[in-house]
Amino acid sequence: MELATLISYSRGHMPADLLLKNARVIDVFNGEVLPPAHVAIAHSRVVGIGDYQATDVIDVKGAYVAPGFIDAHVHVESSMVPPGEFGRVVAPRGTTTVITDPHEIANVLGLDGIRFMFESAKYGPVSMYVMASSCVPATHMETNGAVLHWYDLVSLQNDPWVLGLAEVMNFPGVVNGEAEVLDKLRIFKNAVIDGHCPGLTGKALQAYVATGIASDHECTTVEEAREKLRLGMAIFIREATNARNLQTLLPLVTPMNQHRICFCTDDRQSADLLDEGHIDFMVCRAIAAGLDPMLALRMASWNAASIFRLHDRGAVTPGRRADLIVFDDLQAPRPWLVLRGGAVVAKNGEPLVPRREPPRSLRSTMNVAWDRVDIRIAAEGRRARVIGVIPDQLVTNHLVEDITIQDGEAVSDPERDIVKMVVIERHMYSGQVGKGFVSGIGLKRGALASSVAHDHHNIVAIGVDDASILAAARRVASLGGGMAVAVGEQIVAEVPLPLAGLMSLEPAETVRQQVDRAITAAHELGSPLHDPFMAMSFLALEVIPSLKLTDQGLVDVDRFEITPLWVA
Amino acid sequence: MELATLISYSRGHMPADLLLKNARVIDVFNGEVLPPAHVAIAHSRVVGIGDYQATDVIDVKGAYVAPGFIDAHVHVESSMVPPGEFGRVVAPRGTTTVITDPHEIANVLGLDGIRFMFESAKYGPVSMYVMASSCVPATHMETNGAVLHWYDLVSLQNDPWVLGLAEVMNFPGVVNGEAEVLDKLRIFKNAVIDGHCPGLTGKALQAYVATGIASDHECTTVEEAREKLRLGMAIFIREATNARNLQTLLPLVTPMNQHRICFCTDDRQSADLLDEGHIDFMVCRAIAAGLDPMLALRMASWNAASIFRLHDRGAVTPGRRADLIVFDDLQAPRPWLVLRGGAVVAKNGEPLVPRREPPRSLRSTMNVAWDRVDIRIAAEGRRARVIGVIPDQLVTNHLVEDITIQDGEAVSDPERDIVKMVVIERHMYSGQVGKGFVSGIGLKRGALASSVAHDHHNIVAIGVDDASILAAARRVASLGGGMAVAVGEQIVAEVPLPLAGLMSLEPAETVRQQVDRAITAAHELGSPLHDPFMAMSFLALEVIPSLKLTDQGLVDVDRFEITPLWVA
Repeated sequence: MELATLISYSRGHMPADLLLKNARVIDVFNGEVLPPAHVAIAHSRVVGIGDYQATDVIDVKGAYVAPGFIDAHVHVESSMVPPGEFGRVVAPRGTTTVITDPHEIANVLGLDGIRFMFESAKYGPVSMYVMASSCVPATHMETNGAVLHWYDLVSLQNDPWVLGLAEVMNFPGVVNGEAEVLDKLRIFKNAVIDGHCPGLTGKALQAYVATGIASDHECTTVEEAREKLRLGMAIFIREATNARNLQTLLPLVTPMNQHRICFCTDDRQSADLLDEGHIDFMVCRAIAAGLDPMLALRMASWNAASIFRLHDRGAVTPGRRADLIVFDDLQAPRPWLVLRGGAVVAKNGEPLVPRREPPRSLRSTMNVAWDRVDIRIAAEGRRARVIGVIPDQLVTNHLVEDITIQDGEAVSDPERDIVKMVVIERHMYSGQVGKGFVSGIGLKRGALASSVAHDHHNIVAIGVDDASILAAARRVASLGGGMAVAVGEQIVAEVPLPLAGLMSLEPAETVRQQVDRAITAAHELGSPLHDPFMAMSFLALEVIPSLKLTDQGLVDVDRFEITPLWVA
Repeated sequence: MELATLISYSRGHMPADLLLKNARVIDVFNGEVLPPAHVAIAHSRVVGIGDYQATDVIDVKGAYVAPGFIDAHVHVESSMVPPGEFGRVVAPRGTTTVITDPHEIANVLGLDGIRFMFESAKYGPVSMYVMASSCVPATHMETNGAVLHWYDLVSLQNDPWVLGLAEVMNFPGVVNGEAEVLDKLRIFKNAVIDGHCPGLTGKALQAYVATGIASDHECTTVEEAREKLRLGMAIFIREATNARNLQTLLPLVTPMNQHRICFCTDDRQSADLLDEGHIDFMVCRAIAAGLDPMLALRMASWNAASIFRLHDRGAVTPGRRADLIVFDDLQAPRPWLVLRGGAVVAKNGEPLVPRREPPRSLRSTMNVAWDRVDIRIAAEGRRARVIGVIPDQLVTNHLVEDITIQDGEAVSDPERDIVKMVVIERHMYSGQVGKGFVSGIGLKRGALASSVAHDHHNIVAIGVDDASILAAARRVASLGGGMAVAVGEQIVAEVPLPLAGLMSLEPAETVRQQVDRAITAAHELGSPLHDPFMAMSFLALEVIPSLKLTDQGLVDVDRFEITPLWVA
């Protein structure tokens, strides 16, 4: 909007487009509720608060009006729906801006994948900013779909929707001064650089911070978070599906340090987004736990905007974007009306923005050389390394167990809960398969397979017999990616995720039902885990201790090297 | 410094350059004092806090170490010394960064003047950032030395030492949507835009803020400041030589809003800088008045850095600039050691940086067409408008008085304290003279003249007789600019200000003594005012009510027009 026009609106010389009448505006700067007034909106902006006229009027009857919520760090892919659909789920929850790291799709499709995310977010109900994924692939001990070098990231550097460099997970690389990661830091030195350094402390942490890495969302104790705050890092309190730090970290927040703290969800499945919510869930939880609502609302809006240098939002003031939420209860700010850029995008919990198909079809990412895939494990010993699942944790135990041998082959022994696991390479048509055994999934028959396998997202499968494993894995491939449950040749449940093998074309509600059915099927096959698919998806992530399996084989994470299956 | 080198320092693999041993570091984020530790510095950066080694060691013996002070808004010219010398005065006070508006010299020399300020600041003890002067000239009712159009400011837009647009004093122009000022706002829309809008409120203020103007340093009441904070403006609390708002505004500061508030000095004469101090003076005053020292220290450092997007400073953390102050008393943080970029620049109140001559000579700015200058006032009536000085205020009364006539000329009448005032144009060689009378200066004989006359800085002179007036004014011109006191033909005191007629080549201490002598001389000629020169310098500023005199004549500020001397 031209400045002269904006001024005319603010002075009340022209009727605004929309008036939120009788609003109690949250002043995030002073932490106060303003006396009832009208909020005038023109084009995408708030133009004034007070006695204004407008073409359209919504009487909010004394409800509160606050800035829309901002998620400071989220991998949209974890919801299994693309950004447009993700927006339709979180907008009714009051989220108007998300800062995303398209790390999952980048591992499959590189820059093409990141561009797809931009395109899919367009015209959606939420502003989606991107942090350039910094660690693709995660390590050299896997085969993923793309490598992002520093010179690849240069193409993102000046994109107005790119705010900086995403979580620099390779903190050992930073602390050891590895050239590849330092090159990436250098490119984004004038932008925002997000960190990811669980447990890092002392001089190593100081070195990490000294390079300009400015935030962390991996804190699990108040002491850890306070050390990082003290060193100048912003702290994003996370409440993911499988990593929940909110209750633990709330005591960190004081009036003195609160402006350096905001909220993020990192990874949230559709079920949690639909049932619990998004940032609204964190705000309500925090208030219920005793946080001043004014602090909670500010952390969810202004603080994140300020940390990410989004100077056009985060407060209800003239000239800023009309990204607004309207709610009745200050103790539980669940919005019944949500505006993004002055347009009503959700009402009474329902999105008002029509579903859009993802803007262009992605090429198939299921490139499996089935004729060379051999999942049999020759018996080369008696005792083998076994991945020991710990329920509800990403870390695993590094076990050594006797393995059952049949006809010269090592096979699953469901009675002892030692079951075969394979990781089938699906990007490079290599036919490469990593093979091993896992304990703690609890399968008694059949197999599970999925193309969601952090971070390389090859096909991971766990099963009692090879026929079931192959059936499930082949079904995943023929779906163009997804999840499948098989018993022998028969597919008993499936979730198509044809977008890079990570995301669905269906509405989030449908995806959630499909996933629920797949989990139920896995339970019926004997697994007692809350979500065996999620557990499985992290068994292939070779940066989390202690024993993991990639397509290249078993990884001893503590020693950071490929290790043989068999123990001499 | 290369990132790999920085990392090595932080990890303690290489000895740092300098160690501040046994320091109690102020953590501006949590508002806490850290346990005693060593602060390691390499090149210009802090590299770590803890157990480090270094080539040079300073044992601070348990003293506090805090980030250097930042002045959020200052016109260096008001100190009457150029930036290099200004830095030598304020660095010992703990100031390591100043955000300046070179508005005064810009009115004399335009972009050349601004460039001179950059050059003079180079290699000085203080980082000097510039905000591009937005209102040069102040109005069309004066003749100044340069016009800065929007296209002139473009040349500053991408300078790394320019942070944005300086105080947009033309708030009526903004609110009325005048093209020239909106063009300037447009150029700097992605940078910081400082405001200046005393008393502006309601919809006009909302329109002003909506354009992106993001701060104000002119608040004189808590209510005014709170309204502006609420609209998203940052508030700079000011303690200038002639406008002191600190005590009044301190009750504004709460833990909730403090991160949007910082300190500035706007205009401080050398005498005040030398006697009272700079930002340290404000910090000590604020603490003495009851402000939490942690808040005061943060407002003076991190808050200003954050508001001006100076992400490399404002806290004592690894990777940030080693702009540090060392002091013993948390209740009165007057530093005994000051570092800028890791170098000790001041110790025990003395600057350790050698004086540098201003880097190049400026052209003479005294272009007075003396052969056409005629300061006589023909008697064209009996009653005339007279500027009524109000002690210690910038606003004046608009009086109408009987004027004494001698030989057809209107003349001073010191008995009735109605004395002649002239403004002699000194930029364009026009010979133009504005003429009038002033009451309240109190001169009984002789004359004062000065080339410091806001904002156009023509030669302003006030005197009892024309011979004295001309002698003083001619002396100012022959000094290349400055201040002079004359009695008849005799010059009894003078202050040479050959740099644009605004600043001296001498040390601040010398300037201060010269100014003191000039003031004493003025007192001896009868003026009872605390500082008659400062009072005189604002009598020519046609944007402050009610009656002022420029080279173009008397200005009725309330009607915003030139008005005749004589009343019919």
